[in-house]
Amino acid sequence: MISRSPDLIKFRGVVVSPRNLRSFHHRHPPPPPAPTMSDLRPPEHQVAGHRASANKLGPLVDGSGLFYKPLQAGDRGEQERAFYEAFSAHAAVPPRIRDAFFPRFHGTRLLPTEARPGDTHPHLVLDDLLAGLQAPSVADIKIGAITWPPSSPETYVAKCLAKDRGTTSVLLGFRVSGVRVVAPGGAVWRPERPELKALDTAGVRRVLRRYVSSVSGEGADCSLAAAVYGGEGGVLSQLHELKAWFEEQTLFHFYSASILLGYDANAVSATGVGGGVRVKLVDFAHVAEGDGVIDHNFLGGLCSLIKFISDIVSEAPETPPLAP
Amino acid sequence: MISRSPDLIKFRGVVVSPRNLRSFHHRHPPPPPAPTMSDLRPPEHQVAGHRASANKLGPLVDGSGLFYKPLQAGDRGEQERAFYEAFSAHAAVPPRIRDAFFPRFHGTRLLPTEARPGDTHPHLVLDDLLAGLQAPSVADIKIGAITWPPSSPETYVAKCLAKDRGTTSVLLGFRVSGVRVVAPGGAVWRPERPELKALDTAGVRRVLRRYVSSVSGEGADCSLAAAVYGGEGGVLSQLHELKAWFEEQTLFHFYSASILLGYDANAVSATGVGGGVRVKLVDFAHVAEGDGVIDHNFLGGLCSLIKFISDIVSEAPETPPLAP
Repeated sequence: MISRSPDLIKFRGVVVSPRNLRSFHHRHPPPPPAPTMSDLRPPEHQVAGHRASANKLGPLVDGSGLFYKPLQAGDRGEQERAFYEAFSAHAAVPPRIRDAFFPRFHGTRLLPTEARPGDTHPHLVLDDLLAGLQAPSVADIKIGAITWPPSSPETYVAKCLAKDRGTTSVLLGFRVSGVRVVAPGGAVWRPERPELKALDTAGVRRVLRRYVSSVSGEGADCSLAAAVYGGEGGVLSQLHELKAWFEEQTLFHFYSASILLGYDANAVSATGVGGGVRVKLVDFAHVAEGDGVIDHNFLGGLCSLIKFISDIVSEAPETPPLAP
Repeated sequence: MISRSPDLIKFRGVVVSPRNLRSFHHRHPPPPPAPTMSDLRPPEHQVAGHRASANKLGPLVDGSGLFYKPLQAGDRGEQERAFYEAFSAHAAVPPRIRDAFFPRFHGTRLLPTEARPGDTHPHLVLDDLLAGLQAPSVADIKIGAITWPPSSPETYVAKCLAKDRGTTSVLLGFRVSGVRVVAPGGAVWRPERPELKALDTAGVRRVLRRYVSSVSGEGADCSLAAAVYGGEGGVLSQLHELKAWFEEQTLFHFYSASILLGYDANAVSATGVGGGVRVKLVDFAHVAEGDGVIDHNFLGGLCSLIKFISDIVSEAPETPPLAP
């Protein structure tokens, strides 16, 4: 559990020191004035999680680089806020890791809710991870064979375990929670959740191949594999950097967090050498303290994902496609 | 399930090819004539698993380098035999990995049982992994946060999950199943199973420190850490070699297998530079097919163990102790 006071932030019992907090505030000046509701809209490219609608809370973007994530119900919202506060302030997190692989946290903000006029709801203010991508191809991959923190109550363990066994989590150490692929003509492939939940090992391999293919329809040519997955700054090299950190870091255990992959389908097909490839961690409502132990569950799933993607790069055509 | 015929060996549905089988028989000539019961005795240094007694089946050694493990009841015994047969014959297993990290398999043999006079029981004939060590200090470490193969029935999952959560398996990705440490005067420390089962993170760290300490009693000086864990041929370098294989290998998933550590407490304290340090995998009754996916569960636990042991080496005195 988390407790907060004006002077201290506790993350699952660990007090974040005032020294770290100063550093946190130094790095994160208060965000600009609140946007009005008319600036905000549901993100067009969201592939997983709750979606905002007239009657439901969901994330919003302001079109100028910020992403507003409503605090989730129960403990989750507060847990996620506590994680962002602790993580942003933690002196032992290498700045390169924080900047490269995590959305920047800009505090929380009360926003009016369409569902309950006159009422407000607290939102985490984060970087919009897909800002700047004209035609984002996105994949949300939930990492770890185990998605429940060890201290969870029995009913929660049972619920998660059923999902972890019913999807590929236990078998592969990860599952694809969402995907959106933009084909050359602009056509978007975004399978529905039941389809993703039903994927087996071969299905996951197909989705990860299709994510780097520039065809419309069912096929997969993996013509973008070298540009998106391989090469300098590609997904694989970023995942390897993340892996090196996970082999050492004993601060946090990222249960049920996802790796979000993104690239610009327009830019990559135009230049053939990348296109804003992004690898980010998201969804921290179930992060637990590391207590001096590495996150072997996340690390194992990450290594499994790396193997899947390496295999695709090895089998794919070696040179990225040229511009048409 | 496994099926056997004179021509084929099936390991959980995978047929081991006759070509591989020939290679298997080539590498493993029939073992020497069966020992008589009077040659056989329970291993003095066993730290985990069932123990042999007048009324119970348990492993036996013949004193000349072989270890006889009774086939376990139910499917387990046949599963373990099928694993050894498939593994010994598998062309994709690097010989260096097989030779360095696994007991050599010499087939099975029917041995008379003391418990049921006149009756026999099949035994796996394996290398005695502690042969040649005068004063073996031994640790049996069960690897993986998950100890049940994904295809297991509900009742088995529930039973394993309770143990995995009740011990350090879920939290650390491994648990210490047995340990035996020989102090300089020859005194042996071998905690009982309930004590090991009750270990928390700090307790596991204490046990892994005491395993490389040359003191009698409760303390731990870690004076053997550099010689046993560190350095060329030490535990860490062997675990790193194993890790590199697990990052690539997609043949087998080693659920509920253990890493057995061994060294000669007499030799290490006499020479200060090792003493027959051994790192071996054992207990394969719950191995599953890899089906093209890495064993992220074993790999994660292995990385966690590596971090624990690295931390001990970093904190320990740098030079191994000199002979007295």
